[in-house]
Amino acid sequence: MSAKHDDDLNTRLSRVRVVLVNTSHPGNIGAVARAMKNMGLNQLVLVNPAEFPSGEARARASGATDILEQARVVTSLDAAVADCAVVLGASARLRSIPWPGLDPRAAADKVLAVVESADAALVLGRENNGLSNAELDRCNYLVHIPANPEYSSLNIAAAAQVLVYELRMSLLEQQGRRDNRFHSDQPRATAGDLERLYDHLQQTLTELEFLKPSAPRQIMRRLRRLYGRAELDRMEINILRGILSAIREKLGRTKTEQS
Amino acid sequence: MSAKHDDDLNTRLSRVRVVLVNTSHPGNIGAVARAMKNMGLNQLVLVNPAEFPSGEARARASGATDILEQARVVTSLDAAVADCAVVLGASARLRSIPWPGLDPRAAADKVLAVVESADAALVLGRENNGLSNAELDRCNYLVHIPANPEYSSLNIAAAAQVLVYELRMSLLEQQGRRDNRFHSDQPRATAGDLERLYDHLQQTLTELEFLKPSAPRQIMRRLRRLYGRAELDRMEINILRGILSAIREKLGRTKTEQS
Repeated sequence: MSAKHDDDLNTRLSRVRVVLVNTSHPGNIGAVARAMKNMGLNQLVLVNPAEFPSGEARARASGATDILEQARVVTSLDAAVADCAVVLGASARLRSIPWPGLDPRAAADKVLAVVESADAALVLGRENNGLSNAELDRCNYLVHIPANPEYSSLNIAAAAQVLVYELRMSLLEQQGRRDNRFHSDQPRATAGDLERLYDHLQQTLTELEFLKPSAPRQIMRRLRRLYGRAELDRMEINILRGILSAIREKLGRTKTEQS
Repeated sequence: MSAKHDDDLNTRLSRVRVVLVNTSHPGNIGAVARAMKNMGLNQLVLVNPAEFPSGEARARASGATDILEQARVVTSLDAAVADCAVVLGASARLRSIPWPGLDPRAAADKVLAVVESADAALVLGRENNGLSNAELDRCNYLVHIPANPEYSSLNIAAAAQVLVYELRMSLLEQQGRRDNRFHSDQPRATAGDLERLYDHLQQTLTELEFLKPSAPRQIMRRLRRLYGRAELDRMEINILRGILSAIREKLGRTKTEQS
């Protein structure tokens, strides 16, 4: 099941290309390649990069030099995206241009709607001034990363990282495979396991004379609340009950020694 | 309303500190500062950085040098997080240690659950080998970025970018302020606006002899489907109807000239 899911995830992510337009700093190209490979993408297209191939790009790509080696260099945005069913353009939100835009999560949904059978592109512009209006006109949607309005310009590799992360997360979410809650390598404790723990705890705390046999309720309720929300697993229950047994054994021995 | 929401967002984000443990490359410290400021965070704590302050950190921080200037340098993780109600440790998923972990979105929820009234920390480890087991023991939860299992090690600034982005997104989601659908600067067209467009279109296409008056249904149904899902705004309706009027005017004039 997981292998099938992985294949499906990889197939879909390999249909999403990242297009960098007129990138000035080759280090950024390398950092984008690394972000792509980290999230399972592999199609990089460079429109008129200032310098490529580049040692600096290779250094920043770290283990993702294969993405750089396979990268396609083209001379126009049209050549980069002509065969794509959806083209998303990254753009900082400008108050002067109230251009319609999606956040990265909504944008990921637009991409995932087509990649079962078609290609899609995420387009990122120049480091200093993004995509031109003519380039944005070639995009089906603009995607805005919801940044601090006082300082909204992300580094291009950081922006690419956020966009490709959202793609992978949205695919995992679709497959019901998110790590969206605390989980353990051990089976979860059951209600019965918890009740046996509480019995054991109450007996032990009574023998310790920490609980008054006449009024154990308040303290036990607090302890139930604590362990009830702690999402205990079977091994944790065993450790806690082991401690309680050790206490009772020690108390019994002490009592015997004293008598 | 928006100003109140912004204040609330900024207050909560300023209660989340980013803690970098033993960072080797000062450029990464700068890139983390930039990612933080982009997303509205401002508390950076450095545990035994290899080099700080640093010109390289300032260069990579770009406009976020204020975060570097306010950064606190401490000599232990305990000193960095002692006053925090929730401490999250970033960790690559290792098959050998099935340690419980949350994805960044679920982790953001754990942070947001406390920051109305308390501080929280996101802890990131060394570039080459992350956080030690002893350091992970000091965290309430581990957070894993769901990466490609074949190449799962993100650059530390890229990892920080993803985590702080998720914090801002989750807060915006809580406030109902996500840009999660296509929207325009113009009011949305109503069903009545659309019906008037379709009438205008059908009349014009009939005059153009593109539609057969006897059987206009199939084509009109296709055009309704197209414009119905395009989420038209009022201005777009006006432009389309302006085109239709121009066609009919031209046709009328041509007919008059011909007659």
